[in-house]
Amino acid sequence: MKRPNPVRPAIQKMHGYTPGEQPNPDQPLTKLNTNENPYPPPDQVLQAIHQAVGESLRLYPEPSSRPVREAAARAYGVTPEQVVVGNGSDDLLTMILRTFIDPSQVVAAPAPTYSLYETLTTIQGGLFQSIPWHDHLSLPIADLVESRAKVIFVVRPNAPTGHLVPLASIASLCQQTNGVVILDEAYGDFADDNGLPLLQEHENLIITRTFSKSLSLAGLRVGLGFMHPTLAAQMHKVRDSYNLDRLSQAGAVAALDNLAAFKPGVDAIRSQRKWLSEALKKRGFLVPESQANFILATVPQKGLKAEQWLSALKERGYLVRYFAGDPQLKDKLRITIGRPDEMKGFLAVVDQLL
Amino acid sequence: MKRPNPVRPAIQKMHGYTPGEQPNPDQPLTKLNTNENPYPPPDQVLQAIHQAVGESLRLYPEPSSRPVREAAARAYGVTPEQVVVGNGSDDLLTMILRTFIDPSQVVAAPAPTYSLYETLTTIQGGLFQSIPWHDHLSLPIADLVESRAKVIFVVRPNAPTGHLVPLASIASLCQQTNGVVILDEAYGDFADDNGLPLLQEHENLIITRTFSKSLSLAGLRVGLGFMHPTLAAQMHKVRDSYNLDRLSQAGAVAALDNLAAFKPGVDAIRSQRKWLSEALKKRGFLVPESQANFILATVPQKGLKAEQWLSALKERGYLVRYFAGDPQLKDKLRITIGRPDEMKGFLAVVDQLL
Repeated sequence: MKRPNPVRPAIQKMHGYTPGEQPNPDQPLTKLNTNENPYPPPDQVLQAIHQAVGESLRLYPEPSSRPVREAAARAYGVTPEQVVVGNGSDDLLTMILRTFIDPSQVVAAPAPTYSLYETLTTIQGGLFQSIPWHDHLSLPIADLVESRAKVIFVVRPNAPTGHLVPLASIASLCQQTNGVVILDEAYGDFADDNGLPLLQEHENLIITRTFSKSLSLAGLRVGLGFMHPTLAAQMHKVRDSYNLDRLSQAGAVAALDNLAAFKPGVDAIRSQRKWLSEALKKRGFLVPESQANFILATVPQKGLKAEQWLSALKERGYLVRYFAGDPQLKDKLRITIGRPDEMKGFLAVVDQLL
Repeated sequence: MKRPNPVRPAIQKMHGYTPGEQPNPDQPLTKLNTNENPYPPPDQVLQAIHQAVGESLRLYPEPSSRPVREAAARAYGVTPEQVVVGNGSDDLLTMILRTFIDPSQVVAAPAPTYSLYETLTTIQGGLFQSIPWHDHLSLPIADLVESRAKVIFVVRPNAPTGHLVPLASIASLCQQTNGVVILDEAYGDFADDNGLPLLQEHENLIITRTFSKSLSLAGLRVGLGFMHPTLAAQMHKVRDSYNLDRLSQAGAVAALDNLAAFKPGVDAIRSQRKWLSEALKKRGFLVPESQANFILATVPQKGLKAEQWLSALKERGYLVRYFAGDPQLKDKLRITIGRPDEMKGFLAVVDQLL
């Protein structure tokens, strides 16, 4: 019997999201391509996880990650009822779309942005609108409001540009839109300020954070969403019943209770970001100021094209990120900030290739 | 400004899925309510997890859990391309609905069944049809086919009844329906046979398994989906990019490479299942044969009602599951099979209450 294809047409047509390359552990490559933290998680976190490895793994975890929500409340001065925990912040983005977006409703974001938003919108049957950043990368507030989007994503600092829109622009967007504003602070800990103080005044604001960047735990898959308790209650309905395992919960609590242990790494990254930006600018790259743990560098007009830089760097041991699909990014490379020795080695290879 | 409620009407109206109670670790309760395994995971698994706790947690995991898919291929005689890994099998159920169900399309299951199917269908905007089991709990194949469901869920052994429909009925359903048949084998390792041999012949069959029951790893959140590679490729598109963390991947590989280590526990549970069923039958309970790690017992007509049993048992230290919402289950308790000492203690309390 020949059956009709059971797969939803939207899924048949789409391409899945392509994560940055994960080389085999035996390949001697320095990963400057997925914005991981070059410093290991602190011992307190590793010890907490070791302690959770035992007989209790036979039991389900706390369904809503209550210990993590309580630790987040202690760490950030909110209440546990304002926090939803995700299996990575991508899980939170999925929950957000499933909570707010019915078929054909609009999701908008200033572009370029994190490309997963469009993928997730397509899966949910929504319509994604890319709205160009204004000149000098200011937030296109009026255009976002006029899009009638039910959900508006803004990454701050933005990916992949690294720039930081003023918090006043976010507040103004929240005030003017009828939709929900998602402030994606995946890279917030590397910036000069963050949006948590806005939560009090804006009931349509959701702030997402991840443990994958500043907290050195990409391998553990933990994200946090901060929002008004009434939105949180609805998000919990679409959350997988046990979305965070026992070990991730244990590690996340320890990380939140020891935030100070991550500060030296974050400070080193901020200082290396400045160092690398200056060094590349002296060599003819255009490097706008970044407030994240990466820079978006436009390659010099003469010499290799960005895509050629990508492969030449890889041949010499350095993985960076190139966004093949986006014309706005065709002459640019996104480079994760690493340790000082990695940055020196990277620059030496750049000098060979110039 | 007063905004319209941004939450989808379907989500506003629905209740979230209610998982079984997870008591605080300091409460001296014997958990016979969520079908966890009473035996701890074997040392090989715990050691593999300990080894994965380290600096590499700063790096993202392998996106598609390739090491787990390869281990599953070795363990079950399939190819890695036939396997999709979930953050628990609930994550797989969500992926299935997001891959196949557009708004208003039908999802069907013989009832009573796992109540999460209806919740997930509602979230996806589909229409859930509960189709009663035929007399003697045989599979209502014609009714399921006539429902025109795009997705049909069958739990085997069934939850919460524990009965096992013949594999020939599953094969027949696959052959007759235009939809996709999901054979949920969460409890399959406790049964006399399983559906993996059917995969070869039925391209519209997906088999799901969990590590939460027979593999003693509910706290780690791992599930497997087996299916034709063309369906798997579509499911990967809607899968969260990094849905399984590094520690769960390490533990899952070790579990799959050491399946024999779980067999003594499974055998003990099967033997205790028989023992408890007989003992309760002698005391006036109706206990149909179960092939899972739980039994569904109808309480004696005289004496306490099922809901009263629930609280009386809890007061005396034993948590069992009662399904308040379902009239078909109003005189029944679902009791997880535990260790021999737990079963003896439970029965002693039952004797006090009779």
